Amino acid sequence: MKLNKNIETILGCEKEYTDADIVIFGAPFDSTASYRPGTRFASKTMRSESYNMETYSPYLELDLEEDTAVFDAGELDLSLGNTPKTLETIYDFSKKLLEDKKLPFMIGGEHLVTYGSVKAVAEKYPDLHIIHFDAHADLRDEFLGTPFSHATVLHRCHDLLGDGRIFQFAIRSGEKAELNWGKKHVFTHMFDFANLDKIIKELENKPIYFTVDLDVLDPAVFPGTGTPEAGGVSFNELRLAMQAVAKLNIVGTDMVELSPPCDLSGMSTTVALKLLREYLLALSHKNKK
Amino acid sequence: MKLNKNIETILGCEKEYTDADIVIFGAPFDSTASYRPGTRFASKTMRSESYNMETYSPYLELDLEEDTAVFDAGELDLSLGNTPKTLETIYDFSKKLLEDKKLPFMIGGEHLVTYGSVKAVAEKYPDLHIIHFDAHADLRDEFLGTPFSHATVLHRCHDLLGDGRIFQFAIRSGEKAELNWGKKHVFTHMFDFANLDKIIKELENKPIYFTVDLDVLDPAVFPGTGTPEAGGVSFNELRLAMQAVAKLNIVGTDMVELSPPCDLSGMSTTVALKLLREYLLALSHKNKK
Amino acid sequence: MKLNKNIETILGCEKEYTDADIVIFGAPFDSTASYRPGTRFASKTMRSESYNMETYSPYLELDLEEDTAVFDAGELDLSLGNTPKTLETIYDFSKKLLEDKKLPFMIGGEHLVTYGSVKAVAEKYPDLHIIHFDAHADLRDEFLGTPFSHATVLHRCHDLLGDGRIFQFAIRSGEKAELNWGKKHVFTHMFDFANLDKIIKELENKPIYFTVDLDVLDPAVFPGTGTPEAGGVSFNELRLAMQAVAKLNIVGTDMVELSPPCDLSGMSTTVALKLLREYLLALSHKNKK
Amino acid sequence: MKLNKNIETILGCEKEYTDADIVIFGAPFDSTASYRPGTRFASKTMRSESYNMETYSPYLELDLEEDTAVFDAGELDLSLGNTPKTLETIYDFSKKLLEDKKLPFMIGGEHLVTYGSVKAVAEKYPDLHIIHFDAHADLRDEFLGTPFSHATVLHRCHDLLGDGRIFQFAIRSGEKAELNWGKKHVFTHMFDFANLDKIIKELENKPIYFTVDLDVLDPAVFPGTGTPEAGGVSFNELRLAMQAVAKLNIVGTDMVELSPPCDLSGMSTTVALKLLREYLLALSHKNKK
Amino acid sequence: MKLNKNIETILGCEKEYTDADIVIFGAPFDSTASYRPGTRFASKTMRSESYNMETYSPYLELDLEEDTAVFDAGELDLSLGNTPKTLETIYDFSKKLLEDKKLPFMIGGEHLVTYGSVKAVAEKYPDLHIIHFDAHADLRDEFLGTPFSHATVLHRCHDLLGDGRIFQFAIRSGEKAELNWGKKHVFTHMFDFANLDKIIKELENKPIYFTVDLDVLDPAVFPGTGTPEAGGVSFNELRLAMQAVAKLNIVGTDMVELSPPCDLSGMSTTVALKLLREYLLALSHKNKK
Amino acid sequence: MKLNKNIETILGCEKEYTDADIVIFGAPFDSTASYRPGTRFASKTMRSESYNMETYSPYLELDLEEDTAVFDAGELDLSLGNTPKTLETIYDFSKKLLEDKKLPFMIGGEHLVTYGSVKAVAEKYPDLHIIHFDAHADLRDEFLGTPFSHATVLHRCHDLLGDGRIFQFAIRSGEKAELNWGKKHVFTHMFDFANLDKIIKELENKPIYFTVDLDVLDPAVFPGTGTPEAGGVSFNELRLAMQAVAKLNIVGTDMVELSPPCDLSGMSTTVALKLLREYLLALSHKNKK
Repeated sequence: MKLNKNIETILGCEKEYTDADIVIFGAPFDSTASYRPGTRFASKTMRSESYNMETYSPYLELDLEEDTAVFDAGELDLSLGNTPKTLETIYDFSKKLLEDKKLPFMIGGEHLVTYGSVKAVAEKYPDLHIIHFDAHADLRDEFLGTPFSHATVLHRCHDLLGDGRIFQFAIRSGEKAELNWGKKHVFTHMFDFANLDKIIKELENKPIYFTVDLDVLDPAVFPGTGTPEAGGVSFNELRLAMQAVAKLNIVGTDMVELSPPCDLSGMSTTVALKLLREYLLALSHKNKK
Repeated sequence: MKLNKNIETILGCEKEYTDADIVIFGAPFDSTASYRPGTRFASKTMRSESYNMETYSPYLELDLEEDTAVFDAGELDLSLGNTPKTLETIYDFSKKLLEDKKLPFMIGGEHLVTYGSVKAVAEKYPDLHIIHFDAHADLRDEFLGTPFSHATVLHRCHDLLGDGRIFQFAIRSGEKAELNWGKKHVFTHMFDFANLDKIIKELENKPIYFTVDLDVLDPAVFPGTGTPEAGGVSFNELRLAMQAVAKLNIVGTDMVELSPPCDLSGMSTTVALKLLREYLLALSHKNKK
Repeated sequence: MKLNKNIETILGCEKEYTDADIVIFGAPFDSTASYRPGTRFASKTMRSESYNMETYSPYLELDLEEDTAVFDAGELDLSLGNTPKTLETIYDFSKKLLEDKKLPFMIGGEHLVTYGSVKAVAEKYPDLHIIHFDAHADLRDEFLGTPFSHATVLHRCHDLLGDGRIFQFAIRSGEKAELNWGKKHVFTHMFDFANLDKIIKELENKPIYFTVDLDVLDPAVFPGTGTPEAGGVSFNELRLAMQAVAKLNIVGTDMVELSPPCDLSGMSTTVALKLLREYLLALSHKNKK
Repeated sequence: MKLNKNIETILGCEKEYTDADIVIFGAPFDSTASYRPGTRFASKTMRSESYNMETYSPYLELDLEEDTAVFDAGELDLSLGNTPKTLETIYDFSKKLLEDKKLPFMIGGEHLVTYGSVKAVAEKYPDLHIIHFDAHADLRDEFLGTPFSHATVLHRCHDLLGDGRIFQFAIRSGEKAELNWGKKHVFTHMFDFANLDKIIKELENKPIYFTVDLDVLDPAVFPGTGTPEAGGVSFNELRLAMQAVAKLNIVGTDMVELSPPCDLSGMSTTVALKLLREYLLALSHKNKK
Repeated sequence: MKLNKNIETILGCEKEYTDADIVIFGAPFDSTASYRPGTRFASKTMRSESYNMETYSPYLELDLEEDTAVFDAGELDLSLGNTPKTLETIYDFSKKLLEDKKLPFMIGGEHLVTYGSVKAVAEKYPDLHIIHFDAHADLRDEFLGTPFSHATVLHRCHDLLGDGRIFQFAIRSGEKAELNWGKKHVFTHMFDFANLDKIIKELENKPIYFTVDLDVLDPAVFPGTGTPEAGGVSFNELRLAMQAVAKLNIVGTDMVELSPPCDLSGMSTTVALKLLREYLLALSHKNKK
Repeated sequence: MKLNKNIETILGCEKEYTDADIVIFGAPFDSTASYRPGTRFASKTMRSESYNMETYSPYLELDLEEDTAVFDAGELDLSLGNTPKTLETIYDFSKKLLEDKKLPFMIGGEHLVTYGSVKAVAEKYPDLHIIHFDAHADLRDEFLGTPFSHATVLHRCHDLLGDGRIFQFAIRSGEKAELNWGKKHVFTHMFDFANLDKIIKELENKPIYFTVDLDVLDPAVFPGTGTPEAGGVSFNELRLAMQAVAKLNIVGTDMVELSPPCDLSGMSTTVALKLLREYLLALSHKNKK
């Protein structure tokens, strides 16, 4: 008999806060999206669709309910249209999690939300490095007349961290100027994940913020995003690359840019949930060892 | 800070079970749907979309949070494809609520779910009468070779209650045979709500089960249903008719046949939530007096 | 032979700037939209779909190409996610138009864009009054933690103009608090356009800003909006009410909240274009006299 | 056991050719559609969706299977993009039906198909009159550089029949020139069905071709059409008007412009089927007397 | 001239029953679908869309009309919501076909329908082996409180056949318990078709029931299914694997889980039809030799 | 300030006519489409969606605005349903461009539009050869009773050029008869681009018309086309093959069969724009050398 209030958590993330080592939270913000908005619905939709995804990974032979300790905090209350306040709310929540020794795992929202979380993580880990999977370089200094935008977020992260700290993979779109700027200040590997193993080795002892813009996937696999870019990576390529990065010392992380209104078949939400499962299991399995 | 598990309740129905006089629960079952299935997603979607509907009624100048005491029990665990077991689960839950002196308020699902709840209510109230708003008479004795179906549900209720107990309004579709059967056994007012006031007066002191099949609405207003029928009633006509019935001694009730997969614009879910608000307020306001 | 660059203007608005008395411009901003964003695409989509709408009105027996002088300025370059800068850009453009003695006619975008234009118009016309058609009162003082929002825009306009200047019609949604605030500071006629004639008479010699939130229409007629509200007015009711207001001394005006991504059938864009035609003809016809 | 080939006929139209007095056939052609094509799928979709519509009319208390004798010939093989050949095929088939003393009942397709059928009917009935329900006047002399188009079809019919033979109702769109031409050559009643009774009386003993462009309905009721026009008639208004016309001496008829690809909810196909049922029953009931 | 009733058969399957060696029939049942229902429309939609698919295979250089003898029996009349009766109807029809020495080729519906057909085939061929292509293991013993479900169907088949008879390929989803159960009782090859050649050799002289759940395909290729699972096989991989299995002694077969309501672009129906063509040609070509 | 009329050009094609060496124009015609029409909207939609595609190619490290000289002429005014007149208009415009020494670059529309342009180009270059990428052979002599159709267009081009002039790649669909005809008269490489390099070498000094039917892509990558065919090439395969052909002496070219109404996610328009960018840059870069 169902006599308690209805609880909805994301895919098998059913631990209490105090028992968890990873805390998932949604950052439902898409106010700077320049093309098709909708990423604000990502975490809510992932939670709502979780009931149909297995918690067991046949790839890793591990189960979210048995083999991880993740708390799902639901959605942050963000101020749509008020970018400074939104970034501050994300910063504050990430900081609280870090103080409580939880790994902050944010689900966007548009890519700009990464800035709020990176800022909190970089304060705790001054030697922070970023690994960034994306179709777009996101390195502009300004976009549509504003410095804080999904198209500038990695440039803003560079403001915090400086040269040699950002490692981008599978980028396949950008304007000429930003890509030229990137050549001087960040490491950008275009089109695929070749070299990832080498970079992983180099970063072995560093604190890492890992940000995954899901539009790195090919639109055939992941149509549900605001700015689809032809020629992306496959599901299995991304799954394996994420599991490889998960072996590093991840101190903050996010998955961004799922846009459910663009995901008419629901396929993309399924992909996002499956990558979340595989990545959480890889993160947790490493932690246990 | 969001450090407790994420709770999702339907539109302002946030009381605890013990404090509530009305209990809402979802019956996510659509296995006998003969045309386009999808009503299984109705209560889940209404819960998920509640955040954007005001709890305040400008029609009644009352507010769900202040002026009602409703608990939302979430979704029953039903056995899709197993009709007998599903009806039993609904019956058991309704019975429990009646024992605890709560008004059972079910959100379908397809119309067959009404049978499970009516059975429990009729056991407690042997003099039960049914008021039924619908586009379809639902009076067949068998449909697609099976006696328990959305198309037979009122005939099955008649099995429980007998002649003179069922009052249908705004019916605009049926096969010849079932409508002829109906003329002998139930009261059917075709096409609109004329005469409703008269029937309400006649039933003033009776225990009433009130079942609203939302496809009574015109498909222009409510496209999100499996079997749309042109020529239905308007939103305001249904709102006023439901509020009129709410003045009676309602001892069990349901709203059925919202099908979110058929509701591409989301408009129908909005209509269902607004009718739910207006009806809950009318029910509660009367109770208080 | 097509040897000049491709020009796209909205429905028959093909005059040069210098020859026009009305100037249409798009304000593609929806960053504060709290439910489903997408209104940023409204003016662009209306322009793109114009080729299939007649320029001739059988209601008024007038033709946009012959009987009006309207220039279409295309889209403003707005800073998505940067609300202050966006409002400033709108303010600047409206001011320029007023200096050049053009009537500013803005196509939103979400309702907040109205503030930028009203500010410019109110500076020129200190005795400005606002007539406001909408499903929602938009009178909150704050929404999602921010004072500038589609849900607060009429409160912000009241900041500029003070009591007794705002006249709302056909409102059917709001929270209790904002509607109570409204009772003291603005005139609100709920649900329909009764009394509109009386108010029009009262305002006969006043400078008027007329803002039409298209969600005042019933969602059956106009599903393509972010926050559909059941129980709205019909197309012909709105058409006649807009033509009635057009007789007043309109010194600034807008139509807002068409959201093409929510308009799957394209019907709502058609409705918006047809209302634009009828309203422009009514405005221009009066001017000529 | 299903050991014979699969037969699909439209809604209860299951008589053999020789036994039928009415013959339905599809004219799947939409090559001149200027906006959104798709009406080619209308008759096929109506056939495919028929299984879910009752054959019994609660309005007339008659049943298609018992009270009519209609044969469904399926789809004509038309030459898409080849307008002259298409019109010839329709003409030939209509002529054959008339020779066999069947009433030709065509389901379009775009409105141009009417020309092929009218030509055959007018040869047999030189005193033919046309009753035309539509949102659009369809009276241009040329459209997109070609004389045979959905936008010119009634002008082409006028070429065959001359002045005073065409009676249009509920028109609400056209260019200035064509409406002015119409004033001299046809009878056009704008916006609604007022006066229909009077015209019916005048035409009582005339042979009538009755053509119904379903976009005469309001787009809220019937979004599934290529050129939706706000401000149309309701389902019940059209149903009653069609049943009134059915009392005349109908010698040829059609229903056109359902476009299933524009009918995302499926609602419009349902409306078309229901109007087909009501109209066929009205036609047949009169014939029997 | 079209003077006979309209016949619709699936893609080139136009032989009479008595002349056919393969009989296709639809099993439109999806009552146990736990996520998104809609597979009931699969065979109907495939039939309806057949007119646009070539009957000629450029891969095999064979043509369905010349090189096969297939009768299409249309749709079985199944009792939605009544699972036992549905399975019995499928069993009876399959049995009849086997008695008449036809190869039963069923088009689901959800995967549970396989049980009805396997039961009939296993009675005739006690040494029956099953080859099963699927994303999901479908090996649970119970699902949603019921033993007969799409998620249990291969476990139920195991009840009929026992250990060592079921060979699964390309499975990529399941709960831990069912996959562990599977390891003891069936052969499961995960993720792809490696080893298929080896298994085909082992089963060379056995009677085979071949069941293809189309969700084995990657959702990018085949979004039109109720439970999409990222990371599936490609069209060409499945085509070649099906043609390889077709060389065996197939005594019963099915293709299941196409869900047209989930197939917004229509792409998946096209894929299903093409696989049907290639598989029927491979089956028939072998038979002829 | 936006005081000039609104100009819309396709992706970075912003040169004046006189300064351009390539001229893009839309041919919005789809009247012979046999399955799902909609390609008439292709060039218009590509223009409308251009604002979100980068003009810079990270593959070629070139930028459309800096490294090409392309004028976009907008849409031709074609006569829908009037095939001869449409082909004549295309022929006339292509001829004018050739006289002015511009490279005609047409964006369909259905594939038949190629005939109009090829006819003009072949008059200027009697030794013209055609390279043709497509899923379909398009070699029938007649289709649906008419000789000019998307399914016959390459046969019609053969009428102009004769044997040995047409080179088809990646074909994967056709009827037996047309493919047999093709074996005698054209070069057809089935399924992929193997051998393309060899053919490119053979045609090195010939004038080439290059026509790309975008349905050569796999429907997973490019669902937005009227006749999707499973088993197509990938985005990168097509991009590289187009860039390889671009090195030849291209004297006329087109991209056809994008159908925006079939492209629900918008992904296909994005793919078409990206291929356009890469192909224009490859064409222009070669020209400059």
